[in-house]
Amino acid sequence: MLLEAIEHRPKMNWAYTVDKETIHLRIRTKKSDVERIFVIGGDKYAWDRTKEEIPMRVFASDELFDYWECEAKPPYRRLKYGFKLESGSETVWMNEDGFHHTERTSSDDFYEIAYINPEDIIKTPEWAKNAVFYQIFPERFANGDPSRDPENVQPWGGKPEVDSFFGGDLEGVRQHLDYIADLGINAIYFTPIFEAPSNHKYDTQDYLKLDPHFGDIDTLKQLIEECHGRGIRVLLDAVFNHSGKTFKPFVDVKENGADSAYADWFHVREFPIEVKDGIPSYETFSFEPNMPKFNTGHPEVKKYLLEAARYWIGEVGFDGWRLDVADEVDHRFWREFQTVVKEANPEAYIVGELWHEATPWLQGDQFDSAMNYPFTYAVRDFVALGKTDARKFAYSLSKQLARYPLPVSQAAFNLLDSHDTERILTVAGGDKNKLKLAVTIQMTYPGTPCVYYGDEIGIDGGADPDCRKCMEWDESKQDRDLHEFYKTAIGLRHEYAALRTGRFDVLHAEEGGHTLAYRREDEESTLIVALNASDKPQTVEIDANGGSEKTTAEAWSVLAAGGVKPSLKAEDRLDAKKGRLTVELPAYGYAVLKAE
Amino acid sequence: MLLEAIEHRPKMNWAYTVDKETIHLRIRTKKSDVERIFVIGGDKYAWDRTKEEIPMRVFASDELFDYWECEAKPPYRRLKYGFKLESGSETVWMNEDGFHHTERTSSDDFYEIAYINPEDIIKTPEWAKNAVFYQIFPERFANGDPSRDPENVQPWGGKPEVDSFFGGDLEGVRQHLDYIADLGINAIYFTPIFEAPSNHKYDTQDYLKLDPHFGDIDTLKQLIEECHGRGIRVLLDAVFNHSGKTFKPFVDVKENGADSAYADWFHVREFPIEVKDGIPSYETFSFEPNMPKFNTGHPEVKKYLLEAARYWIGEVGFDGWRLDVADEVDHRFWREFQTVVKEANPEAYIVGELWHEATPWLQGDQFDSAMNYPFTYAVRDFVALGKTDARKFAYSLSKQLARYPLPVSQAAFNLLDSHDTERILTVAGGDKNKLKLAVTIQMTYPGTPCVYYGDEIGIDGGADPDCRKCMEWDESKQDRDLHEFYKTAIGLRHEYAALRTGRFDVLHAEEGGHTLAYRREDEESTLIVALNASDKPQTVEIDANGGSEKTTAEAWSVLAAGGVKPSLKAEDRLDAKKGRLTVELPAYGYAVLKAE
Repeated sequence: MLLEAIEHRPKMNWAYTVDKETIHLRIRTKKSDVERIFVIGGDKYAWDRTKEEIPMRVFASDELFDYWECEAKPPYRRLKYGFKLESGSETVWMNEDGFHHTERTSSDDFYEIAYINPEDIIKTPEWAKNAVFYQIFPERFANGDPSRDPENVQPWGGKPEVDSFFGGDLEGVRQHLDYIADLGINAIYFTPIFEAPSNHKYDTQDYLKLDPHFGDIDTLKQLIEECHGRGIRVLLDAVFNHSGKTFKPFVDVKENGADSAYADWFHVREFPIEVKDGIPSYETFSFEPNMPKFNTGHPEVKKYLLEAARYWIGEVGFDGWRLDVADEVDHRFWREFQTVVKEANPEAYIVGELWHEATPWLQGDQFDSAMNYPFTYAVRDFVALGKTDARKFAYSLSKQLARYPLPVSQAAFNLLDSHDTERILTVAGGDKNKLKLAVTIQMTYPGTPCVYYGDEIGIDGGADPDCRKCMEWDESKQDRDLHEFYKTAIGLRHEYAALRTGRFDVLHAEEGGHTLAYRREDEESTLIVALNASDKPQTVEIDANGGSEKTTAEAWSVLAAGGVKPSLKAEDRLDAKKGRLTVELPAYGYAVLKAE
Repeated sequence: MLLEAIEHRPKMNWAYTVDKETIHLRIRTKKSDVERIFVIGGDKYAWDRTKEEIPMRVFASDELFDYWECEAKPPYRRLKYGFKLESGSETVWMNEDGFHHTERTSSDDFYEIAYINPEDIIKTPEWAKNAVFYQIFPERFANGDPSRDPENVQPWGGKPEVDSFFGGDLEGVRQHLDYIADLGINAIYFTPIFEAPSNHKYDTQDYLKLDPHFGDIDTLKQLIEECHGRGIRVLLDAVFNHSGKTFKPFVDVKENGADSAYADWFHVREFPIEVKDGIPSYETFSFEPNMPKFNTGHPEVKKYLLEAARYWIGEVGFDGWRLDVADEVDHRFWREFQTVVKEANPEAYIVGELWHEATPWLQGDQFDSAMNYPFTYAVRDFVALGKTDARKFAYSLSKQLARYPLPVSQAAFNLLDSHDTERILTVAGGDKNKLKLAVTIQMTYPGTPCVYYGDEIGIDGGADPDCRKCMEWDESKQDRDLHEFYKTAIGLRHEYAALRTGRFDVLHAEEGGHTLAYRREDEESTLIVALNASDKPQTVEIDANGGSEKTTAEAWSVLAAGGVKPSLKAEDRLDAKKGRLTVELPAYGYAVLKAE
């Protein structure tokens, strides 16, 4: 047994609580090195009476490691625990003080969850786990009130430049809620809408004021009310890391330097604030002089920003926050932010823009989840670019699942593209079959999918500003087949809870090739997704029941299937022989199967 | 290179900030597997201009691993970084997405410290790093005011039973401050002093009231003032996990059940509160019905307890808290606790009673350090019980140092015994030479040493209540030689900052034997501590300059030496040949050497 590969530490992704009764325990071992692992757990004050052995299972694997997990339900909400690892004739006991080749007679040196405190439970909003999001860049979605157009507005549908305005507004969104609801969307993510000079509004001028080009507060409240009436939640984007150049306190500091009442609102290294050789004398986002970084440790700054955090949730009615440049803001601020937001709405969903491993923000005390760009890039590399084989793709996904507590993974913000990236269709070289494959993965994978406005009708676009084209409302110019596909894929996700919160198990991941199959399973249903990300037809052999706790299905119905010639709804039935299922897939084909 | 052994994750002990300019980075590799490691780091917005390679060094090793570290000072307080690992002809690059055998052309998949926010810096109080503590159990230290004696007080010096009272009080402590200061102590840790029925006061009746048997608030304030006048800080112990049985809100809940105004102050599973088959119907410490666990998520409970947290620091003048049963309280409570306490006194020192790995509490947001019981048991096993060899002892220490950020290790509460354990002299079978060896380690090791009252004059004692004997004030009954030894050892620690905050490097750790040598080094001085924990004389060969960044000393003076026939102060001089130093140590002997 390779002891150096074995990893477990207190809390984090390794030992966390998901409700008042339940602890998830995980451990990592070298890949294919260990046959069986048991948690030996019990109450430290009633060890003999409560001691039990709980078998673990491998729930994820990557290039180097297997990741094991199990659930413990200690009767008195306290758990001391160690691990027993078995491989062939070798048995190793692992406790906090290291490895042992004989069983421990005492539990003194075991790990410990001292008590399941309700405040430490990792929970994420149930609605977010069940949501399919639609991301709207308001300036480009629909112009519903031309009276609010900025000066120099361009004709709708023109080529977007960095500084273009096309007149999109909130009334435009309101007028198209039927369209959004019809697609199956039950949550909208708005990029910023606070008053700001730019078209993207990430350069905030006033955190407590709606941009007048987008509407007034009544339009907004009506929009939110209508969304809620349709069961659609609304997420708002904002930048708490830095302000824009027209933010009054910053203007004041520029004018008055150290004498400004706002001198401590920013991180100024030296007054007067200026830029020398391209380096501002104050902290900024990147080296951008017009994006001064907030001193989020200053009581007045906190008061102002946290009032904004509260106001838009508690008074205006948004259902959560997407937080721009979240990783550059201090953790203390985010903890206070979470407290304020969840007091205003305990079901609020908080998503951080975090491109890297987000563990330090996802321990239940700051954010519910992060923009899942690792997912984005894994899907792009596998499906759109064909750069990685199915094995590596499966490893990428598994590594992510192993990094975070389950409730976090179930609310991970799974996007294929955004206002910050090329559109997925463009990455895929315009190949809509690849796009459909990517969306099929997105809609059948754990985490909260988000559709970037217009992807569903075939809008393409390179890097910013090209990815921010105007929405196309002329149906004759929309790809209606693609739209229908999106409706079906989203519909499937809503129909089967297993696709949202069921277990995820990779059944087949071709090494050096591009076929993949995974299973989603909960108490109600068992589904298998089979994919072929290559340009040739492939046949996939699946051990359909392998590793399942319940499935012994021998017949499978085809819920959806697609490929070069997609047939979106199929009633075909596939028979499995002793659990072996053979699925023939066309180039870029997929099938979603259901155990009967 | 064994890739499975290599570990690095964001933040925690792996990547943390210690001031506005400085990041500490660490990585773990298989023991003796990697020859050189470099951090490749730079600013993500100015990569080409700022990119640098920083060499790492091994700062700790245990049975399986080497732990490497380096310091980075990114000019714009942002650091993207990866690792380059070299061994023989093999070079491996490690980034957040895994291992690569070619250098990365982009830093996209590197790790990141997005910005050094002042609020996230891991800092612990400077005074605590430089303190030598003295733990006082007030009921047993000195009876200075017999008018405050409880009823049925026993004659001073009698055998302690679970319920004995001997009349110790705060006036008694005040009267002996000369004694304490003379020993070299500059910080006192008091076990609880709040009103409570027991002798130990861990069963709190009123969190805002001093126990009248210990004194009145004026006595206490005078005591603290006199301590501060002598440069002695004062740490107070309290239990925020549970109250005692006479705590009024609990009495009210017992009487009025669900109708009590305090019904939500505790975690009641079922009213009326009662005990069935030994199991209370409400959450308690262990299964003890008289220690009801607080609902620390309840606003009124928080308000009450946090007011106590503030009052004793901000108004009465204590310098910090030692927190009993800290691991059973939720993290949110401790974060608010830290905020309140550090607002009352930014230099307050917060120490948690945490017997296990304490990482989840030691990220700068909750406690400064923990009761370092892993240190306690490592020293006991090596010195007092002779159960472990020097190699394993060194590994135990190194493992601890690798687990925590440096500022945490420098303020770790290093105790050899306490009111909760057998006294170290008793563990050592009464062997004072072993005791001296243990104390020598404690006083020359990173972390804040704490002397349990009376250890310094030879008081022994088994498990509670025997370890809580009355202090002996009759000098003829005190071991004055031992007392002198403690003074010398404490004095050395105060004299040389290197013993407090210098680098720690193991130079020699005998496998299967009991000789050990380590170096403490800072800019001012270089010291070597050599120890023989066996009952026979031993000669130790030390590579005195190995791994040092500065020492090329060829002459060493002996600051202190001891053994079966201790000579506490020695002016002997040892010469080193090409850095090799030979030290002859008697049975249980030690020497503290200084590079000249």
